[in-house]
Amino acid sequence: MGEIAYKIAVRGRAGIRDVAEAAGVSVATVSRALNKPDSVTPVLRARVTDAARRLGYLGNGAARALASRRSGAMGALVPTLDNPIFAACIDAFQQRLDAHGISLLVASAGYDAAAETRGLRTLLQRGVDGILLVGAAHEPETWALLPPDLPAVVTWMHRAEGCALPCIGFDNAAAAARITRHLLALGHRRIGMIAGLARGNDRAAARIDGVRAALAEAGLTLAPPLLAERAYSVAEGSAAMAALLALPDPPTAVVCGNDHLAFGALVAARRAGLAVPADLSVTGFDDLDFLAHGDPPLTTVHVPAAEMGRRAADHLAALAAGKEPPPPAELEAPVVLRGTTAPPARRRATPRRARA
Amino acid sequence: MGEIAYKIAVRGRAGIRDVAEAAGVSVATVSRALNKPDSVTPVLRARVTDAARRLGYLGNGAARALASRRSGAMGALVPTLDNPIFAACIDAFQQRLDAHGISLLVASAGYDAAAETRGLRTLLQRGVDGILLVGAAHEPETWALLPPDLPAVVTWMHRAEGCALPCIGFDNAAAAARITRHLLALGHRRIGMIAGLARGNDRAAARIDGVRAALAEAGLTLAPPLLAERAYSVAEGSAAMAALLALPDPPTAVVCGNDHLAFGALVAARRAGLAVPADLSVTGFDDLDFLAHGDPPLTTVHVPAAEMGRRAADHLAALAAGKEPPPPAELEAPVVLRGTTAPPARRRATPRRARA
Repeated sequence: MGEIAYKIAVRGRAGIRDVAEAAGVSVATVSRALNKPDSVTPVLRARVTDAARRLGYLGNGAARALASRRSGAMGALVPTLDNPIFAACIDAFQQRLDAHGISLLVASAGYDAAAETRGLRTLLQRGVDGILLVGAAHEPETWALLPPDLPAVVTWMHRAEGCALPCIGFDNAAAAARITRHLLALGHRRIGMIAGLARGNDRAAARIDGVRAALAEAGLTLAPPLLAERAYSVAEGSAAMAALLALPDPPTAVVCGNDHLAFGALVAARRAGLAVPADLSVTGFDDLDFLAHGDPPLTTVHVPAAEMGRRAADHLAALAAGKEPPPPAELEAPVVLRGTTAPPARRRATPRRARA
Repeated sequence: MGEIAYKIAVRGRAGIRDVAEAAGVSVATVSRALNKPDSVTPVLRARVTDAARRLGYLGNGAARALASRRSGAMGALVPTLDNPIFAACIDAFQQRLDAHGISLLVASAGYDAAAETRGLRTLLQRGVDGILLVGAAHEPETWALLPPDLPAVVTWMHRAEGCALPCIGFDNAAAAARITRHLLALGHRRIGMIAGLARGNDRAAARIDGVRAALAEAGLTLAPPLLAERAYSVAEGSAAMAALLALPDPPTAVVCGNDHLAFGALVAARRAGLAVPADLSVTGFDDLDFLAHGDPPLTTVHVPAAEMGRRAADHLAALAAGKEPPPPAELEAPVVLRGTTAPPARRRATPRRARA
């Protein structure tokens, strides 16, 4: 261990003076070599960066942020990290930001409006060059806090009424309509929906709209008790499905607002002794790995979570650098047909009605 | 919209002068009211904080970080966010930090050593008051970068050889030994393991040690081909189980290094026409929600992910504030007996051996 490295190990973080001493140059030369690399010779540059790397010299992020008015970090404000679909998006967002040399600050709000505003405030206080939002339904306080000149993108939606931000997402309503039409084509007429809570969640609301629109094309309606709004969780999906199965005339197919709800619905169906898809069809929305390989594998809508994360990173990085961003494209959210949907059992509709 | 709010909407972020103007006080009074609230009257304080909130005045995070040498943020360096077990920990970590008024910066390394060092450098450059690490197996470059005086905790391990940092975790080896003894007690003698990749992952290595120790107590050994090390994924678990089932004398029980591998193993067993647990016992490690409700529900080790996140937040917050932290406790990681383990099928061992 050299003398300087030893001093640093004893004293803590290396300073610019330590780098200068180790490289045998002046402090001003270190500063020039690191901040304006072209202003020094390649040999000198290599000597300084080598010493800086060896000593773990970081520069001063906070000072640099003040000077450049750029923080080198992006913020992500997500409803929760405790759902693999957001984790997949944020993981891809982070990896692509890393490729741009940008770090990530995450705030997760737990689907709580006040926590979301607090989370955004925290991100802004730390200093971020841009923000990834999920959906465009946010509290007035959250919108008021967002500086009008700060780069920001809305993900999970392909467009948002009255919101001027670029949207990098997919058409939730169209995807929900597509999977509903699949059930109609199989011959289902009594179709229920276990939706997410639509209040404050534009994605959940759009999925309800989509199911309702597809049913309307077939002359059918969607209303409680066949429409249940529930928090996104396995337990809530299970409870909602149990309630649907207890109806005098239960549905033969149930569209779920996400895969967690669908998984809960499958658990409840199994407990009730029903075979999926022979006795009951169930669909999800997200396309989580575990359910793609389930028994039976879940028919669902594939949400392009990682792709949204990557594109959001590229978009924000371009905006923060003052460059033209790639145009925000609408991504595909295809229906993935697997094993949880089939034509309705003939014997079901009439005997059940007769029994009621 | 008031005149000042209008000016701000046009011009961008509110400054301290805007707050002073809106509250009808001097800039110095705004500064005192926000930074030393006790130095002004409650009425004046309310007037200033009200104006600041209304205008979305944030103060200057970067300037404050420089002045106080505290950044108000903690860093988390995780192997990946794209596994619900880390997402659950980080989600709980973030929510508890939020309660302490601390924000979170996340860097995810994708199980890549170089990316981990880069991630830590980024966190340090942004300025963090502390770091959450997963495990204590890190590259020399990563350790060299970590300032000796920066608060840091190791999670997922209850202790780590040669590492002076506080550990907030559980005993991976003991938990793996416990679930193996459960299989031995059921009568299994031919036990395989689909482990995670042990290189650079002390948790994965400890789990192998635990299985091996429990088998040694019964006079049994663990070595390839009955021991397979695989990357943590459903596909790898499936491939590894297919290879185990193709052995001339396949195992009657398989301990898996995490739930993703176990789920893949279950998929492969089903494809091979084997009933779990009648024909084959399988165990996991993590206790993910989806697999707890699977068919059959997975026998596994419960990893206290959220609890580690909460305790790490309390510990780091105390250290950063110069307070005595709560002592780092070893957490429980109990075996959760569910539906994927049973005594070995009598008919299996002999006929299979005869066929080979």
